[in-house]
This record gives sequence, structure tokens and C-alpha cells, in this order.
Amino acid sequence: MGTPPLWYTYPAMVFSVNERYALWLDEQDEMAHYRQRFVIEDPELIYLDGNSLGRLPKATRARLQQVVDDGWGRRLIRSWNEGWIEAAARVGGKIAGLIGARPDEVIVADSTSVNLFKLALAAVQSQSSRHKIVTDNLNFPSDLYILQGVCKSAGRGCHLHIVESDDGIHGPVEQLADAMDDDTALVALSHTLFKSGYSYDMATVTELAHRAGAMILWDLSHSAGSIPVALNAANADLAVGCSYKYLNGGPGSPAFLYVRRDRQEKLGNPISGWMGQAEPFAFGLDYESAPGLRRFLTGTPSILGLSAIEPGVDMLLQAGMEQVRAKSMRQSEYMISLWQELLQPLGFTLNSPREAARRGSHVSLGHDDGYRIARALIEEMNVLPDFRRPDNIRFGIAPLYNSFAEIHAAVTRLHTVVAEQLYEKYGPDSLPVT
Amino acid sequence: MGTPPLWYTYPAMVFSVNERYALWLDEQDEMAHYRQRFVIEDPELIYLDGNSLGRLPKATRARLQQVVDDGWGRRLIRSWNEGWIEAAARVGGKIAGLIGARPDEVIVADSTSVNLFKLALAAVQSQSSRHKIVTDNLNFPSDLYILQGVCKSAGRGCHLHIVESDDGIHGPVEQLADAMDDDTALVALSHTLFKSGYSYDMATVTELAHRAGAMILWDLSHSAGSIPVALNAANADLAVGCSYKYLNGGPGSPAFLYVRRDRQEKLGNPISGWMGQAEPFAFGLDYESAPGLRRFLTGTPSILGLSAIEPGVDMLLQAGMEQVRAKSMRQSEYMISLWQELLQPLGFTLNSPREAARRGSHVSLGHDDGYRIARALIEEMNVLPDFRRPDNIRFGIAPLYNSFAEIHAAVTRLHTVVAEQLYEKYGPDSLPVT
Repeated sequence: MGTPPLWYTYPAMVFSVNERYALWLDEQDEMAHYRQRFVIEDPELIYLDGNSLGRLPKATRARLQQVVDDGWGRRLIRSWNEGWIEAAARVGGKIAGLIGARPDEVIVADSTSVNLFKLALAAVQSQSSRHKIVTDNLNFPSDLYILQGVCKSAGRGCHLHIVESDDGIHGPVEQLADAMDDDTALVALSHTLFKSGYSYDMATVTELAHRAGAMILWDLSHSAGSIPVALNAANADLAVGCSYKYLNGGPGSPAFLYVRRDRQEKLGNPISGWMGQAEPFAFGLDYESAPGLRRFLTGTPSILGLSAIEPGVDMLLQAGMEQVRAKSMRQSEYMISLWQELLQPLGFTLNSPREAARRGSHVSLGHDDGYRIARALIEEMNVLPDFRRPDNIRFGIAPLYNSFAEIHAAVTRLHTVVAEQLYEKYGPDSLPVT
Repeated sequence: MGTPPLWYTYPAMVFSVNERYALWLDEQDEMAHYRQRFVIEDPELIYLDGNSLGRLPKATRARLQQVVDDGWGRRLIRSWNEGWIEAAARVGGKIAGLIGARPDEVIVADSTSVNLFKLALAAVQSQSSRHKIVTDNLNFPSDLYILQGVCKSAGRGCHLHIVESDDGIHGPVEQLADAMDDDTALVALSHTLFKSGYSYDMATVTELAHRAGAMILWDLSHSAGSIPVALNAANADLAVGCSYKYLNGGPGSPAFLYVRRDRQEKLGNPISGWMGQAEPFAFGLDYESAPGLRRFLTGTPSILGLSAIEPGVDMLLQAGMEQVRAKSMRQSEYMISLWQELLQPLGFTLNSPREAARRGSHVSLGHDDGYRIARALIEEMNVLPDFRRPDNIRFGIAPLYNSFAEIHAAVTRLHTVVAEQLYEKYGPDSLPVT
């Protein structure tokens, strides 16, 4: 590993690893100007963790100041009648435009986990003759934990069937199909997997679930804002997702949920709070579901959180998900070509699907010393990816603000960290790398 | 109603209705300087709705700017390892100091309704031989809705027993005692009632529940920050509460929950998400409860929400709940004496307990035209209370920023609204007055 190969020392020799090629790609990029709409305090930092916490849009900073100073500080309680009470539905309606749903099918509420609990339990409770929830072992663990809790609360022998992927990278579509039967109430999957970035063919898997008579629930946390989602076209029943990744909604920002229009009146919210009540300000003693999607609200919505989501969503709507996806694919393909040239020879594996169509917007690279390498990349090289056990360094690509030059620099610095063994002073995995 | 009585026209004639008396009370008030620590954009506005949405502390505005610009904008994902991940427990530990609990017994999470669902369902699930939840008809309706949902999810014949108050003002302690039996799993009550402001004797009612072998859960939404609460001294099992009222945490800010130390390991969180997992960043496939209170977290906490809570809590800790309570009692007593002189003759009823010891920090005044009067008070007089059906105008007193002069002005303007029939142009109750 000691000496870098010749083509690294003289990058001009190989076309794709030449930095000037990256700069040329950036010059051709019609979306490059969006980067200026984000707060970039440290221009030297190469931030490739937008799949975990998206950058701060400048408009969001201004929006938060306005809602705090004017909404809370000046108008006080009156602001609830001046837009706040409709904010969950309004922002949800905009998110609908990013995920192929109708505006009245998406609402912002709670966290992804709480929303998953609400919808999954509602789905199971509505089908008393079916007892099984089907998922896969590549789903985000929190989703598995919540589904375990849903089964416990549902009782009646409800159980979770976790199908296993062959290679830990690709979603196990065939095994899922085998597991779906007439005892299956719900199929619950992450649309884009958090480790490998594999993205399911939503229409195909939804069709499989429906053929078995089951409902399907998609977790869109790694898809919303990074890949066009077509919930209506796939006829998907339910979905949840988070807003702090590619939607750039801020740390712990509220999540969203989707219920297909014809399912809304047939499902009840098990966490039946006043915001989902037909007449919340009538203060009647008996719960009565609000018509439509609003029933899936529970408590008072976070107004700071809601306000912080909207500008990021507006920007994505303006940019267009097809354009975002096109750049994302160009960028991840470019990164993989650099991996092939520079990193594969150093022992890095590609832990994401090679085929672009089945890949979301992050690239996972595996290495036995992955954790220590990620630490060194952060501390020594000012490149910020994240790490997921056992060996995945995840590079999130956010087309609205990441450049090709950043991807080039990240890969060449990663090469340096390993070629020059800069990671050796870092201890093994202990601290959480979020 | 046409002509005001003589003592209103010449207020100097009656001691308590003389504005100079209010000014004198403010001069004597050692807590008056706290008002300057809040954003007061419109000094003419008399804001008496801190029981619904507390005012914005100046320190909170600065704190939010810091967390947005520096935490999110500059440090990005690294901020999770630089304080964010501990914020829910840290802020919870501070709130514990306001409600008579140990720091490791309180944590910030989700909304009040979601927390109530988690704790109430956990309590019921832990006592399979008991089937009843006891509450009263003066509880906040959302709590009743949630408890109805808890019974549905718990199954096994779990049902809600709603005890009725005789007068709609006082908590029905005797009827509650009668309803608590060996089939009662949980007694769930608002400590301070949202309409009348009646505040239960926590020690007495907790003891009643324990004598029946039941657990008790207190909703502290209208108590936290307004009245000293002694959860440990009362040996209370469980509690929840909101932070946007007297804690001044901002619109829809996250809620808190309390679990007595010796109960923590015995209760499981039914909404079992990754933040409550023993090792959230190990990403194991099976849920294992975190030790202690952290198990009651579910999804990723709202960092903007958490940041907005802390400065308001710090201010209350500095002021001291005993001092806050002493001023609150002086102020509500003063308001009631003004009601007696000026408003009772105009047909207003006192819909709050007359005895100060059993009254929280808001005063409810009833009037057949309450809704229209409240509208007129807001639109014509720049006084902001809120309204709760059928006839309650609620005046929230927040001792940190409300002055005696404000209370005096509110009552005299209320008198004018009725005496001069200024409310007649407003239509009946239709719009929600939040």
C-alpha cells in the first residue's frame, strides 16, 4: 500500500481521474448554481453526508428568523389562525409533489418512527384475518424495532417475517415474493436502503404485495428528494419518510406520511390525538376521526420544524426531481468510476449496486479499516462522509449542492488516507459516527 | 348594562380598582425585571395567553440563531456528537428541577399526546390482570382521546372510566376515589385543569391510586412552570407535559415525560424506536430497551425544538418556582378581586376555584356572550386571552412577564367591552380561538 500507483502521482495520464475533468463536468452542470442557495460556512469542507443531515438553505435561515420574530414574538397565539394550523397539510401537499402523490395524500407529523407505528398498526388492525408483516434485513433497524412494537401492540399472533438478502446489497425481491401470502397484512420496506443505497422497483414490489392481498408501506427516508418516487403510479398504499436528509429540513425535523386517498377513511390512527379529531376546538369528550388525512395527526405540530422544511422542499420542486435524479446518477457513476481506478486496487469494495437504475443517491464503499479510514478522512482531510457497521463508508451525494470537483477531491483524499496510512493513528470503532 | 357604575367612573373611590394600586403592586414586585428578558414587540398588547403559548424569551432567539448558524450551518452532522444527542436528557434533567423529580427521571420527546400514549399503554400492558383506566371529564379532551386509543390498542377488555365533576370547576376527588378499584391499572389526570384551572392535590390523589394498587399518570401541561410540582414527594409514577405554555418553549415545542426511577426498568416503550434502543448506532436487528429513561425516546429528536426550550427553563430555575407561584397567586387573587368589583355585576361568573391553593395560574371568567366578548377584547382592546367553550374566557397569568397593571387594564377593558356593548358586532362562536 506504501507507494501510490503512477496514475495517481500523474493524474493527467488517466482521463477520468484528472481533476480538470471534474471541473469540466461542473462547468457543464446546469444545476451548479443551486449550491449558492445554501449556507457554506467552510468552503474547504467537502460535505458528503446529505443523506444523513442535509445542508442549511439560506432561505430557511431567513424563514426561521421570520417565524420566530414575527410569528412567535409579535403575533403570538394569533399566528395559529394565520397559517400555523394549516402548515402540516400545506407542507405535506408540497412534499407530495416530490413523491408522486396528490396533495391531500401527504401530511407532515411527528417522527418517521412514530408515523410508521401509526400507519403499520392501523394497517394490521384493519385486517384481522391476517397476522404477518413482511420486511427485509436491510431495512433501517429502527423500522424493524417499530414493526416489532406494532406486532406486540396488535397482539392476535401478529408477527414479523424478516427476509434476508443474499449479498447484503440488493433487496431480496424474490424472497419477499415468496414470503407474501394470504396471511400477510402488510409489507413494509425501505424504498432506498440505508446501507447499500439499493432502491427497490416500487411498482413491481407493490404489485407483488397486492397480488397477495397485502398492503404495502414504503419508508422513503432515503428516497424523498433524491430519486423520483411515483407512489400513485405504483398504487402504493402507505408511506412515511423523513425530511432532514435530502429535503434539507434540519436536525430532527418532523417527518411526513402518505395514505392513498381511498385508504384514508378506512384506517384509524391508533395514536388518536386532538389534531386528528374531527373538531379539535369543540373539545368534545369522544374521539371522532377527522375526515381524510388529517386524522393521522396526533399532537400539536412543531411550527419551527415545519417552517424549516418548506424552503428546502420549494427548492427541490423548482429544480425538478427528474433533473435532480439525472445529476445524482451522473455523480454517483462518476464516483464509482473513480473508485474503480483509484480505490479498488487499495482493497475498497463497492457496497452499492453497480447498476445506476437500482441505486439511490449515496455510494457505500467497504474496507476492513473502514471506521478508522472514515475518521482520518474527517479529521485529516476535511471530507465528511459517515460510517455504518461493519465496514461501510457512505458518501451521500446531494445534487443541489455537491459538485463533481468535491467528489473528485473526496476520492483522491480517500486514496491518500489509505496509500499513506494516515488512518493508523485512529482507534477502532467505538464512538458513534452518526 | 349601559352606564358604568360610579366606582368605575371614579376608580380612586375604590381601593382595589384604582390603577395606581396596580402600579404600586408592580413597584413592590421583585420579579418585575424578568419582563425585560422577553421579546415584547408591541408594548400596548396585553398578552394573557401564556397558558396556551408562552412569550418568546430573548435568549431563545439568540440560542436558535446559534444552533441554526453554527450547529446546523457550520458543524453540520458533527453537531450530533457535540451535544445534540444528549440534548433530550439534558433539557429533561433541567425540567425535572421544576417539577420535583430527579434529573434522570425526565426526558424531552415527541408531543404530549404521543408521550401519554407511550406511558399509558406501557402501564396498562404491565398489569395484565387490571382492565380499567380512570380519568375525569375535565381532563384535556386530547388526553381522553389518547386514552381511548390506548384501550383499543391494549385490547383485553381495557376500558376508560370517565368520572364526572359536580360543578365543572373542581376535580371530582371523591368520585375518583370511588372509581379506583382492584381492576384499575391506571389513573390518568391533568394536574391543573385546562378550563377551570383547578389544580389537584397531587399527594392525596396519588395516595388514593396507590391504595387501590393502581399507577398514576399526571399531565402537567398547565402546571409545569406555573405551580410547584412535587412528583417525587407525592411518589407519582408517571407524568407528561408540554413545554410551549408556561415553559415558553415555542409553538409546538417538544413535550417531556417522567417515569419514577424504580418504574423505568419495568416498563417498555410500545413505540420502540432506535433512540430508545440500547445501542442505537450498532444497528442490530432486534430491539433491546436502553437502560433507564432513554428507552422512552422513539425517533430522532427535534434539535430546533429542544434548543428553543432550554432558555425558558433556565429562566424559571433562576427565578425559582416558589417565587413564581407566590406572584402567580397574588396576581390571580388580584384579578379575582377586580372581577368581584367590576365584572360580577355585569353577569360574569368565576369559572375557576375561589381558593388560591387549588387554582393554577389562569383565571376563567364565564359569560353567556363569552365568545363575542373575547373577540371584541382582542380586536378592539388589544387584550389577548383565549376562549374555551361553552363560555370560558381564560386569562393566563405568566408571572415572569405579566404585570399587575396589565391585569388591571385587562379587567377594566373587559368591563368597557360589556358596559358599552362593543361585542355586539361580532358573530357567534365559529372560528377556532386557539
